[in-house]
Amino acid sequence: MNFKDIITEVYKKVEAMDDQGQLAAFIPELANVDSQKFGVHISTLNQVNFGLGHCYETFSIQSIAKVLSLCLAYSILGENIWKRLGVEPSGTGFNSLVQLEADHGIPRNPFINSGAIVISDILLSNLENPKEDFLTFVRSISNNSGINYSAKISASEKSIGYRNAALCNFIKSYGNIENDPSDVLDFYYDLCSLEMNCKDLSELFLFLANNGSNTHNNESILTKSQSKRINALMQTCGFYDESGEFAFKVGLPGKSGVGGGIIAIHPNTYAIAVWSPKLNAKGNSFKGMKFLEAFTTKSQLSIF
Amino acid sequence: MNFKDIITEVYKKVEAMDDQGQLAAFIPELANVDSQKFGVHISTLNQVNFGLGHCYETFSIQSIAKVLSLCLAYSILGENIWKRLGVEPSGTGFNSLVQLEADHGIPRNPFINSGAIVISDILLSNLENPKEDFLTFVRSISNNSGINYSAKISASEKSIGYRNAALCNFIKSYGNIENDPSDVLDFYYDLCSLEMNCKDLSELFLFLANNGSNTHNNESILTKSQSKRINALMQTCGFYDESGEFAFKVGLPGKSGVGGGIIAIHPNTYAIAVWSPKLNAKGNSFKGMKFLEAFTTKSQLSIF
Amino acid sequence: MNFKDIITEVYKKVEAMDDQGQLAAFIPELANVDSQKFGVHISTLNQVNFGLGHCYETFSIQSIAKVLSLCLAYSILGENIWKRLGVEPSGTGFNSLVQLEADHGIPRNPFINSGAIVISDILLSNLENPKEDFLTFVRSISNNSGINYSAKISASEKSIGYRNAALCNFIKSYGNIENDPSDVLDFYYDLCSLEMNCKDLSELFLFLANNGSNTHNNESILTKSQSKRINALMQTCGFYDESGEFAFKVGLPGKSGVGGGIIAIHPNTYAIAVWSPKLNAKGNSFKGMKFLEAFTTKSQLSIF
Amino acid sequence: MNFKDIITEVYKKVEAMDDQGQLAAFIPELANVDSQKFGVHISTLNQVNFGLGHCYETFSIQSIAKVLSLCLAYSILGENIWKRLGVEPSGTGFNSLVQLEADHGIPRNPFINSGAIVISDILLSNLENPKEDFLTFVRSISNNSGINYSAKISASEKSIGYRNAALCNFIKSYGNIENDPSDVLDFYYDLCSLEMNCKDLSELFLFLANNGSNTHNNESILTKSQSKRINALMQTCGFYDESGEFAFKVGLPGKSGVGGGIIAIHPNTYAIAVWSPKLNAKGNSFKGMKFLEAFTTKSQLSIF
Repeated sequence: MNFKDIITEVYKKVEAMDDQGQLAAFIPELANVDSQKFGVHISTLNQVNFGLGHCYETFSIQSIAKVLSLCLAYSILGENIWKRLGVEPSGTGFNSLVQLEADHGIPRNPFINSGAIVISDILLSNLENPKEDFLTFVRSISNNSGINYSAKISASEKSIGYRNAALCNFIKSYGNIENDPSDVLDFYYDLCSLEMNCKDLSELFLFLANNGSNTHNNESILTKSQSKRINALMQTCGFYDESGEFAFKVGLPGKSGVGGGIIAIHPNTYAIAVWSPKLNAKGNSFKGMKFLEAFTTKSQLSIF
Repeated sequence: MNFKDIITEVYKKVEAMDDQGQLAAFIPELANVDSQKFGVHISTLNQVNFGLGHCYETFSIQSIAKVLSLCLAYSILGENIWKRLGVEPSGTGFNSLVQLEADHGIPRNPFINSGAIVISDILLSNLENPKEDFLTFVRSISNNSGINYSAKISASEKSIGYRNAALCNFIKSYGNIENDPSDVLDFYYDLCSLEMNCKDLSELFLFLANNGSNTHNNESILTKSQSKRINALMQTCGFYDESGEFAFKVGLPGKSGVGGGIIAIHPNTYAIAVWSPKLNAKGNSFKGMKFLEAFTTKSQLSIF
Repeated sequence: MNFKDIITEVYKKVEAMDDQGQLAAFIPELANVDSQKFGVHISTLNQVNFGLGHCYETFSIQSIAKVLSLCLAYSILGENIWKRLGVEPSGTGFNSLVQLEADHGIPRNPFINSGAIVISDILLSNLENPKEDFLTFVRSISNNSGINYSAKISASEKSIGYRNAALCNFIKSYGNIENDPSDVLDFYYDLCSLEMNCKDLSELFLFLANNGSNTHNNESILTKSQSKRINALMQTCGFYDESGEFAFKVGLPGKSGVGGGIIAIHPNTYAIAVWSPKLNAKGNSFKGMKFLEAFTTKSQLSIF
Repeated sequence: MNFKDIITEVYKKVEAMDDQGQLAAFIPELANVDSQKFGVHISTLNQVNFGLGHCYETFSIQSIAKVLSLCLAYSILGENIWKRLGVEPSGTGFNSLVQLEADHGIPRNPFINSGAIVISDILLSNLENPKEDFLTFVRSISNNSGINYSAKISASEKSIGYRNAALCNFIKSYGNIENDPSDVLDFYYDLCSLEMNCKDLSELFLFLANNGSNTHNNESILTKSQSKRINALMQTCGFYDESGEFAFKVGLPGKSGVGGGIIAIHPNTYAIAVWSPKLNAKGNSFKGMKFLEAFTTKSQLSIF
C-alpha cells in the first residue's frame, strides 16, 4: 500500500470522527477560524507530493515556527546556542514559570514558550533586519515567496500576551535576555504569526528529512549532525507535556502549534503536515494527533 | 567502515579519556566495583556479534532491568498498564517525589524509580512466583540460563533504601500500590540486582531491534507495536533528566543503570551494550555516554 | 462582661450553626466519633475554670500532642533542637513532601507531620522508656493521672499510615532520622493517640500562659523564653496552611488536631480548649474555629 | 529598667557587633547608602519618644510602605479586599513566582511583592489621584508634611524591575490585575520609594498599637478589628521566609524593607523603628534583627 492510499483511507476515517477538541479560544483571532478545516499534505524525498482536504488553505502555524527560528539561530551560533537554553523535555505545560525559577532563567528547551523567547532574543541580536531576514530565510527554504506574517494574528496575541510578558521579564531578571523585553516579544509574536498551508509546510520541512539540505537546490541549511539534533529535539520536546505520548503513539519527530497544525518528519523519507484547528486538552490538534497515530500505525513506518 | 572497525576506534579513544565520573557510592556494594572496567558489545540482526574490553564480565545492570520488567508486565496487561503510570518524561531526577505529589501517585513513566516500583507491584499481582517467573522470562529471551540475581547487591540496596521506601509508601497512600510495600520493595531490589555481561545484554535486547521477536527462535515477546512503543519510551525517558541530551547527542533509544551499564537500540539494525562504572552528574555512565555519542557520530546511524 | 457570660453566649450561637465540616474519615476510628459533640473549657491564671457542653468527655487530641512532645524535647535539648527542624510556616498542607525535598529533609516546623516525626525520633533517642516517660510528663503537667494513649486509635492510624511512612523514610534518606523508621512511626502514632477532655486540655496547656511554669506546683516546665517561643510557633505554624487565617481571625497562639480539638493560649491570661469533630477543608475543627473567632471578637482580647 | 535604658544598652551592644549583612546591591541606588548607618526610635502610647544613632536621617523604607498601602486599601474596600489576595505565610522568598502559579494568580499575602502589586492595582482603581492621595494619607497619619517619594530610588528600581514586571504580567494573565501592568508597576515603585527617618516611622505606625486610631488627633484610620488583623498579618507574614524566625526570636508583629528599616509594634504599648542598611541572607536588616531580638529579650515584653 502506498502513501497516497494510506493517507486517503486514514483521512476519511479521521474526518468522520467526533472532534472532541476546542478552538484556541485564548487568542481572539484564532477563535474565529472555521473549526471544520482539515487538511493534510505529504512531501517525500523520492518526489511524492500529495494532499487532501484543506491542504491549500493558509493557517497560522504558530509554534511550528519555533523550529524554524531555532534552525536559523542554530545555523548562526552553532553549539554555543546551548549556553542559553537546554535540550531536555520540560515535564510541564508550554508556558509554565515554575521550572524556569528552579533553573535560574535557563529554559529547558527551545520549543516551550520561554525557550522560543530566548531564541527570538538571539535572533534580534544577530540579524540586521530581524523581521525581514527571518522571512527571507523561511521563503528561501520553501521556495514560496508568498509566505508572510499576519499582522492581525500578531496583534491579537500581543493584546493578551501577559503570560509571555511575564516569561520574558522573568528570564531577563536572570540575565538571559539581551534586548528590551518589549522588542523581544514583538519579534516573538511576529514569528508565531507566520501563515502558510499544509503543502508549504511539508515542502518547507523536508530539509529535516534530508539531513539539513534543501531538496530544491541542495543547499545546506543545517549540517547533517545539526539536522539530526533538531529532529531529536522535536521527538523529545515537540509536544509540550504530550511529547512522550506523541513519541509513544506516533513515533516520529514533530512539532505542533495552537493554530491546529502539526508537522512530522520521517528522517530520510518524508515530511507530513496536518491541520485541524480544534485542540485537545494538551493544546495539540485533536484530529491531527489522531491522523498521525493512525497514519504511522497503518504505514508501519515509525522511526522506532 | 564496518561496525567492528568503528567500535575498535571509538573504544580506544574513549578508553584513553580522563574519566570524570564517580562510582555510585550511595549503594555500598557498587562502591566496591573496579572503576577501570570498560566493556562494549554489539549484536546485529545480520549476525554480527562483536565485543571489546571487559565485555564478558558480569556487572549489576540495575535500572536497565526496568525495561525487562516493563516488557513482561506490558505483555501481560497490554495497554491497560497505562492506567497505573504515564509515558511522559519527568523533567526531574530519578527518585523525585515532587512530581508524584502533583500527579496524585501516578508515576510519569516506567523508568523512574516510582514507575518501576508500580511495575513491580503489577508483576507481584500477576505472576505466580514473581521472582522465579521473571528470571525465567529473562533467561528465555537471552538464551543464557546462567543469568541470575545478586543477593548481595539486593541486600545492599535494601539496607539504604529509605528513599525508595518513601516512594513506595507515598504511592500506596494514593492507592496505586496493591501489595504490601515491603513485598513490593523486596521484589524491586531483586529486579535491580540482575547481573550479566555486555554480550548477554546486547543479545538480550536485540528483540527490541527485531520488532519484539526473539532472534534465536522467532518467538514473539512483544507485538511489533508494543516493541516500537518500548523503544519510544526509552528514547524520551530512558536517561532520567538527561534523556533529551541522550536523544540529542546519541540519537538512539536506550536505558542506563547506576551500575554503569547502558543499552541502546537501533531499530531494525542492532543492540549495543556498554559498561563503565563511573557515573556522570546525572547518574549515567560517563564513558558509556561518551562512547555511544562518538559511535553514532562515526557510524552516522542515529535514528534521526 | 466576664468569660463565663461570653463563652455561654458564643457557645449557644455556634451550637446553632450549620456544621459544614466533615469527620476525619481517613482515620477509620475517628470516622466513628459522634459528630454532634461540642465542648469548650477555659482555665485562667486567676483561677477561673469554666466549661460547657461535652467538655468532660475524652477525645483523641491528635496533633495537639505535637506541642507536648515538642515541649519535652525542647526542655531536654534546648536550642540544639533547631538543628533538626525549622520554625517557619510551611505554606503547604500538613503532610506535604514537596517542601521536604527542597529543604533536604529538614522539616519546616515541628507542627507539620514531618516535623513531629523528627521530634518523635529525638525523644526516642533521649528517653529511657519513651512511651512511659512521655505519658508521665503529660500526666505530671496536667495533674490528671488518668490521661492515657488509645491503642485502638494508634492501631487505626498505623493501618493507613502510608503517607507518614513515606515522610519518615524520606527524612531518613536525608539522614535526619536516627532510629529505625518503624520504631519512630510506632511512637509517633502513640503520641497522636493521646486522649483527654477539654477540661484536661485547658488545664494542661495553662503553663504556656504562665511563662512555662506549672500553675499547680509552680514547677518550671520550660523557661520563660522557651515558653514564649512555643507560643510564637503555635501562632505562625499551629494550623497548617490556615495558620495565617487563624492569626488573622482569632489572634491567639493555638494548635488543632484532626480529632476536632483546638487549644488556644492567651499569654499571661488563659488557655481555652474547644472540641467539635467535624473538620473544615483545611483539616481544622469547623465549629472550633468559629467559636474561637467569635470568642476573641466578643472578648476583644486577642494578642494583637 | 525603662525603655530608654534598655534601648541605650542594646544599641551599644549591637553597634559593636560585626555586621555580617550585605547592602541590597540589586537596587543600584540602595547600593550607594552608607552601610554604617544605625538608628533606632521608639514611640509609646504613654508619650515616651526616644531615639539613638542616625534616627533623624531619612532612608528608603521600601517594603515597609506595603503595610501603609494595605491599610489604605483595607480602609476603602473592607473585607472585600481578601477576594484578591490571601492572609497566609508564603513559605517562599519575597519574589517567588512558583506559588503564584499553584494559586492561580492569587498572592498568598499582601507583604510579598505579588500581593503588594495587587494592592497597588486596587489603589489605582479606587483613588482619584493615586500618587498624591497615598502621600496625603501617609502624611496625615504621621503629622510630618515633609515625607515624600524619591524619584531617584523609584527610577532605580524600575530600571532593574524585570522580576516585578514578570510578577505583575503573570497575575494579569490570571485576571487579577485590572489596570495596565506598566501603570501598576510605576505606582508600586513610587510606593516603595517613600523616604522617612526612624522617628517618623515609629510615630507613623503607633496607630497600629492604638487599635487603629491616630494618637495625635484620635481619628480612626482603621477599625479596632482591622488594626488587630494588620498586626496579625505582620506577625505571620512580615518577614518573607524569615517570618517564623522573627515571631520566634522577637515575638512582635513587624515589617522589614530592603532599605534596612524594620518597624515593630507592641499592641497597646509602643511602636519601634530600627534602621541599618546591611541585610542578612533572607533580605532583612542584619543589625535590625539583632537589635529587636535583644530588645524584647531584655524588656521581656514580647506579645507571647
